Amino acid sequence: MPSQTTSIDNRPEAFDLDACLVRARGAARALPNAPRNAGLLALADAIDAGAAEVLAANAQDVARSRAAGTPDALVDRLALDERRLADIAEAVRAVAALPDPVGRVLDGWTLANGLRVEQRTVPFGVIAMIYESRPNVTVDAAALALKAGSAAVLRGSSDALASNRALVAAMRSGLEVAGVPADAVQLVDDPDRAQVSALLTARGRVDLAIPRGGAGLIEHVVRTAQVPVIETGVGNCHVYVHADADPAMATAIVLNAKVQRPGVCNAAETLLVHADVASSWLPGALAELAAAGVRLRGCERTRHVGGGVPVEAADDDDWATEYLDLVLAVRVVDGLDAALEHVARYGSGHSEAIVTASLVAGRRFQDEVDAAAVYVNASTRFTDGFEFGFGAEIGISTQKLHARGPMGLAQLVTSKYVVDGTGQIRS
Amino acid sequence: MPSQTTSIDNRPEAFDLDACLVRARGAARALPNAPRNAGLLALADAIDAGAAEVLAANAQDVARSRAAGTPDALVDRLALDERRLADIAEAVRAVAALPDPVGRVLDGWTLANGLRVEQRTVPFGVIAMIYESRPNVTVDAAALALKAGSAAVLRGSSDALASNRALVAAMRSGLEVAGVPADAVQLVDDPDRAQVSALLTARGRVDLAIPRGGAGLIEHVVRTAQVPVIETGVGNCHVYVHADADPAMATAIVLNAKVQRPGVCNAAETLLVHADVASSWLPGALAELAAAGVRLRGCERTRHVGGGVPVEAADDDDWATEYLDLVLAVRVVDGLDAALEHVARYGSGHSEAIVTASLVAGRRFQDEVDAAAVYVNASTRFTDGFEFGFGAEIGISTQKLHARGPMGLAQLVTSKYVVDGTGQIRS
Repeated sequence: MPSQTTSIDNRPEAFDLDACLVRARGAARALPNAPRNAGLLALADAIDAGAAEVLAANAQDVARSRAAGTPDALVDRLALDERRLADIAEAVRAVAALPDPVGRVLDGWTLANGLRVEQRTVPFGVIAMIYESRPNVTVDAAALALKAGSAAVLRGSSDALASNRALVAAMRSGLEVAGVPADAVQLVDDPDRAQVSALLTARGRVDLAIPRGGAGLIEHVVRTAQVPVIETGVGNCHVYVHADADPAMATAIVLNAKVQRPGVCNAAETLLVHADVASSWLPGALAELAAAGVRLRGCERTRHVGGGVPVEAADDDDWATEYLDLVLAVRVVDGLDAALEHVARYGSGHSEAIVTASLVAGRRFQDEVDAAAVYVNASTRFTDGFEFGFGAEIGISTQKLHARGPMGLAQLVTSKYVVDGTGQIRS
Repeated sequence: MPSQTTSIDNRPEAFDLDACLVRARGAARALPNAPRNAGLLALADAIDAGAAEVLAANAQDVARSRAAGTPDALVDRLALDERRLADIAEAVRAVAALPDPVGRVLDGWTLANGLRVEQRTVPFGVIAMIYESRPNVTVDAAALALKAGSAAVLRGSSDALASNRALVAAMRSGLEVAGVPADAVQLVDDPDRAQVSALLTARGRVDLAIPRGGAGLIEHVVRTAQVPVIETGVGNCHVYVHADADPAMATAIVLNAKVQRPGVCNAAETLLVHADVASSWLPGALAELAAAGVRLRGCERTRHVGGGVPVEAADDDDWATEYLDLVLAVRVVDGLDAALEHVARYGSGHSEAIVTASLVAGRRFQDEVDAAAVYVNASTRFTDGFEFGFGAEIGISTQKLHARGPMGLAQLVTSKYVVDGTGQIRS
């Protein structure tokens, strides 16, 4: 669809990804000696100062999306107002206040030959972020990458292109004020999807790519990438209620895990219930879930004990579905082994919880469930960088390489070995 | 070429990768409760006990390779004898004796709401190893994966297929004796290269793939893989001799880095020399290198000061080449900045060394060079899991994700967060 807005089409020249990545590498090399925290504060100030331009650009994006018939919920994710923008700038100041993740000594020892080995955290270099509509990610990702000493190459969705341009322009002007290379923050300013593939195959020029968004985006990134990727965010999370669970605690945890914020990856999608408490506990819990607006899809045994609450018949697809909505699949299982089997088969390795009074059952669940975070007697909703106390979150890794679970600044750096000798050679 | 040997063609049935990976997952789930160290010792004993079968199979591979005109050096990498096989078994016993990398507590803290968070090391699950001719890698990789609690799916080269079959059969019989699931060690027993692609795209069924071999193999793996990969091994390493370097130390380090074992990734490929010492130090160093059998390829200034030693003209390709041979590129540079620029442009991020008496120069080199290991006054040859004291080495990572530099057992595990609550829900 040809765009009507001049801000999209009047680009001075075609976007050149190669040149962008060369500039990003140059900026990344200069960052260790640049005043990164001052840059972050100046960047936040520049967002505040440029609010009028950013909001005007965002209004264009919103109007374009509305005209294209985008659903209201998605338009809301795209829309900025003064308050949201001020919060975005404030979040950057909070990042500036965090401890520096670069230059920490992770380990160190001396070899028998006198060589001193030290493992130090160092920046990745160039980090590519590929994400969807929310323009706050543009600022958030840039700020975290900068704090971690890396240049950020940002690829948002074309829906938010005008907003992202205005935000990146503001951030770059802020960095310049503080004497930080502006090329440490760049936008892939070309809506052509081929640029995403080019970014993901730029071996040696992109040190890390992080997709943030829905399952489709992440799938595309993982399938395309030849650069190192951290897979994030898909969560098919379970709460298993063991026979000896405290009934009130079980209900509170299930409700919280499903209802408190259903559209996020650490929300529960399936409830597993020990058969021994199916008739005593489940009807009341289902009634409370239904009262909270949750639509229920259950196995035959669940429907049998449902106690008047409407429960649709669940099939295999339900066990495998990340609803991201007020929908919960419910299955009665014969015990812990069956629950572990179900989680192993359908879980996405994100967050899993058991409610139990038994030390043995809790320990087996924590030992045997293969997931980033495994809870005993707590809601799955705590799998979050802020809740874990990291002070930031770039995403939640669902892979096992490098980082698993919530990723804060400590996961946005790599390390190198620095070795000091006095002429040692290998014999 | 149709093979003449019955052991290649008389497979009882077609190899089924899907079934192999399902069995590997099942074995991986059982491994945490299996006697892994006893399994390793039994595996080593089974290799000793099966020596006759292994050596007979290896003789078939060697004969086939010779008949196919494979160069002697490559045939030598493939060939086993009693001594080599005993060493392979002994290396497994050394792995068994190492501390368990699984179940270590990496971090732990208590949140304000009373949730106790613990980060523990856990196995990856299923690790795929893709490698070239050397049959010792078959055993080495299986042993390290098992020690790290993971199942190993091994894909060696078709040159070594008979050897690998015999070794895997012996290892599996050893595991069975010890009560460890034999499916924790499996061979991709089909020479079709399509199986490599299938293995590398088995998302969710392969948790980690590690290629070990030459640049071509690693390039293929990184381009094909959709599962997490650790890139290993390509090393274009430099030694930079600063103006104030101790001349004897500089010569010793350069010689060691080039000559001690030229065919490995941590050997030096380019010597950079400060212009101030080009005429005083370089002629003698070049003479010693030439005397050690090193062919020299130099910049114009190097050739000018060469002092009678034959130095061929180097071009841009030389700076970018990992010779893996007794060849050294030599370039005279105007100083530290030019050396850093050269390393940034041509280095592969593996191992880099400076020889200097200057604290400032040493610190700048260590801070500014972006490589896995950066040395002051020592040979690049120390970048090695055994030299670093890890007691094992599965490869040397040249990427920045998860592991950078030598990888031992600590890099062959992932982690999970185990969270203990008393009914906490998120507000």
